[in-house]
Amino acid sequence: MPDLVLHIGNKNYSSWSFRPWIALEAAGIPFTEHLVPFDFPAGNPAFRDLSPTGRVPVLHHGDVRVWESLAIIEYVADLFPGAGLWPRDIARRATARAISMEMLSGFRALRGACPMNIRRPRREIDLPDGVADDVARITAIWREALARSGGPFLFGAFSAADAMYAPVVNRFETYGLTADETALAYMERMKAHPAWRKWEAAARAEPWIVPEDEA
Amino acid sequence: MPDLVLHIGNKNYSSWSFRPWIALEAAGIPFTEHLVPFDFPAGNPAFRDLSPTGRVPVLHHGDVRVWESLAIIEYVADLFPGAGLWPRDIARRATARAISMEMLSGFRALRGACPMNIRRPRREIDLPDGVADDVARITAIWREALARSGGPFLFGAFSAADAMYAPVVNRFETYGLTADETALAYMERMKAHPAWRKWEAAARAEPWIVPEDEA
Repeated sequence: MPDLVLHIGNKNYSSWSFRPWIALEAAGIPFTEHLVPFDFPAGNPAFRDLSPTGRVPVLHHGDVRVWESLAIIEYVADLFPGAGLWPRDIARRATARAISMEMLSGFRALRGACPMNIRRPRREIDLPDGVADDVARITAIWREALARSGGPFLFGAFSAADAMYAPVVNRFETYGLTADETALAYMERMKAHPAWRKWEAAARAEPWIVPEDEA
Repeated sequence: MPDLVLHIGNKNYSSWSFRPWIALEAAGIPFTEHLVPFDFPAGNPAFRDLSPTGRVPVLHHGDVRVWESLAIIEYVADLFPGAGLWPRDIARRATARAISMEMLSGFRALRGACPMNIRRPRREIDLPDGVADDVARITAIWREALARSGGPFLFGAFSAADAMYAPVVNRFETYGLTADETALAYMERMKAHPAWRKWEAAARAEPWIVPEDEA
């Protein structure tokens, strides 16, 4: 099988890159990382040569190109059905996909106001309309999933759903968005995961600053 | 197995409902439809009792609740692996999912400016920034998929990807968004599909008007 090559943006800022990267890393799937830095939120013209959308992340696997963070995870789950990226139970898998797609398609207020920024010291900001609703819904999703699974992650073992919410864990932390004990404990477990710590160390070592993402 | 009950909004306007409905109908999967009309774009308070997101579509299957249009399709594809909702080839399936997720998460300019409206007579409108880029990308997606598959649908037989783009076929048609011959021919095949015609007939017979969606 050819190498899996995951093209990503800056680790400090690229929330969409973080999702498939932590999914593959946490599942122990071997892949080669190729980081193409950007210095503005819209990306880098070089991305055009990598992906039909002109955006990262994109996975190259021989001649195959897979874009969209969650589609990359689905492809790798199809390649490695034993890796546990999704819950085995069909109904639990449906819930994991539903909340992953809520993340993929929604929470625009939160994502707009509070860019992911791994290095950012914790500091609260004035929040526009809609962010509180997003925070409430995400907290409800986490509480419901953890109550059903018993933890430590949303569906027990670390899964694609945790990967999809990893950037939000950083947002909740760095902008001080929640005081919910269950959410805070889940966030601590996420941040202690070896894959998280590896991404975080690399993000902290990056030299690039993107002013638009420094809220 | 308990009945699949698909809760949807107005057929004339509810683009998110159209996606799983046409996927299930075209695949010949038996399901019960429950239509809850709304008279404003945000939905209907009754949706709160049906889904944790307070939005339709939502699928009920015994005790299982599945929300998000594409997650419903994935769940049904898991229940009926022989129904052909996704391409069988792993790389083609990855492309089908990637373009489905582009639809799920993107094309906001187009979706905001040109609401789905099955009954609307064709009439062009002034388009805000961003719509032309969305139209160009969608046209490229369709041309690339049809060139590879040979048609008649994006991946040969009707699949989940066609279902995800069905509302856009209406938008392209009713707002006169494309003159691309390949796109127009694909749109004609979509509109001639028996599942499309069944949805369209029901939409035309609905009494409800949503002023905000009459662009």
